[in-house]
Amino acid sequence: MSPIEKTPAAQLALAQESTAAESSPEVKAPRGARRKRDTRVRLLGAALHLMAHRGVGGVTINEITEQADVGFGSFYNHFESKDAIHATLIEEVIGHYAVALDKLGDQLSDPAEKISASARYTMLRGHDDPTWGRFVFQTSFSRDSMSDGLGRYLLQDIGHGVSAGRFAVDDLPSVYIAVGSTILGGLAAMSDQAELNHEPDFFGDAQTLSKRIAAILLTILGLPKDEAQELANRPLPQIELPANPFAQPS
Amino acid sequence: MSPIEKTPAAQLALAQESTAAESSPEVKAPRGARRKRDTRVRLLGAALHLMAHRGVGGVTINEITEQADVGFGSFYNHFESKDAIHATLIEEVIGHYAVALDKLGDQLSDPAEKISASARYTMLRGHDDPTWGRFVFQTSFSRDSMSDGLGRYLLQDIGHGVSAGRFAVDDLPSVYIAVGSTILGGLAAMSDQAELNHEPDFFGDAQTLSKRIAAILLTILGLPKDEAQELANRPLPQIELPANPFAQPS
Repeated sequence: MSPIEKTPAAQLALAQESTAAESSPEVKAPRGARRKRDTRVRLLGAALHLMAHRGVGGVTINEITEQADVGFGSFYNHFESKDAIHATLIEEVIGHYAVALDKLGDQLSDPAEKISASARYTMLRGHDDPTWGRFVFQTSFSRDSMSDGLGRYLLQDIGHGVSAGRFAVDDLPSVYIAVGSTILGGLAAMSDQAELNHEPDFFGDAQTLSKRIAAILLTILGLPKDEAQELANRPLPQIELPANPFAQPS
Repeated sequence: MSPIEKTPAAQLALAQESTAAESSPEVKAPRGARRKRDTRVRLLGAALHLMAHRGVGGVTINEITEQADVGFGSFYNHFESKDAIHATLIEEVIGHYAVALDKLGDQLSDPAEKISASARYTMLRGHDDPTWGRFVFQTSFSRDSMSDGLGRYLLQDIGHGVSAGRFAVDDLPSVYIAVGSTILGGLAAMSDQAELNHEPDFFGDAQTLSKRIAAILLTILGLPKDEAQELANRPLPQIELPANPFAQPS
């Protein structure tokens, strides 16, 4: 069993190291610039954590600066508003992740296998990094997520499969809701499992659950059950997932 | 077209009247008792509204009493804590609704038609009363919802269909996640549509969307596509849905 079969954690650690290596020249940046960058990362990390658990509406700027341990006023040196820091998080956390998932497209020519692998990666990542999982979950059940979030990538992927004659979809909006919601429901179950230490439980372990959910997604997209199950159980291709740059030591 | 085909709003209004009639003897209760009951309802209404939009973690007791326009201290005459008022809301809002949906069981002998009708009622109700829809959505993606929320009714309904040989389910936990998440995703889309006045949009109108989503649910439960579509398009039986007793004039 390759490491990725067990968990993407090893890969994430690798990605984290390479991020650190890339950013090392900045250590030589002037002290003020370094401190400013550090404050920004702390604000983003605090906002990510708070918004992941309470949604953007349940968080105040004061709570963000308190959790980040910086002065209230310095928030405005970096962001115009709470919505602005939220938009930055969506762009950086979700945008980078979606681009990484696009790398799957280089390795997988079958749109069905690509959607299955993307969904499995997303759910497993929620298990490895529950704060990330909750943030994605929180931001994805909105219409904005179809233009700014992961939704647009999902719509695109479903569209490619339909054009290629791989998916039998006669009602795109409903299939989009069903596939997207099921991925997010799986993500919520796995983030919850990891965070609350529920494992093993009714849902089974994260690895098999992510495969079983992927099989259902493929049947929603019109694949026969047997083929869906076979596809959902294939080994995941190796891709470098970007680390969560705002992870806080918990 | 019967009124229910268009919207359950008329039924809800009826139910609201009968609730008012049932509670009219209390109008004769002593002034203090009446005032106490009124305060409790205002606290519940305020908490429902706030928690629907921000989740339980994003709301403080102070915000609840401010929105209810009652003194901070009087909160504790009614509820021990924020979690206690949240538990009461779940019990009253979701519990009453689930019992009402059980009335469908009296009229529908086919487990497939029952799940389809329950899901359609739930989604349409979210469209008629977006605060209710958002509250149900907020509380349902948690493991607690399998014991305290609508999840337990869904699990039960799927179980009945499996026992009756109506559903071909070989993986109950994944099917539960997929069916439950898809209903909630539809509910979120419709609450959002109603609240933000998006209609008509990519998803189409609430009436047809709820049917199209129900058809997908039935295929996840193992029904053939054609049969699922036929079932999901049947007229909804007339049931009396309980009104939301904590609705606030907006």
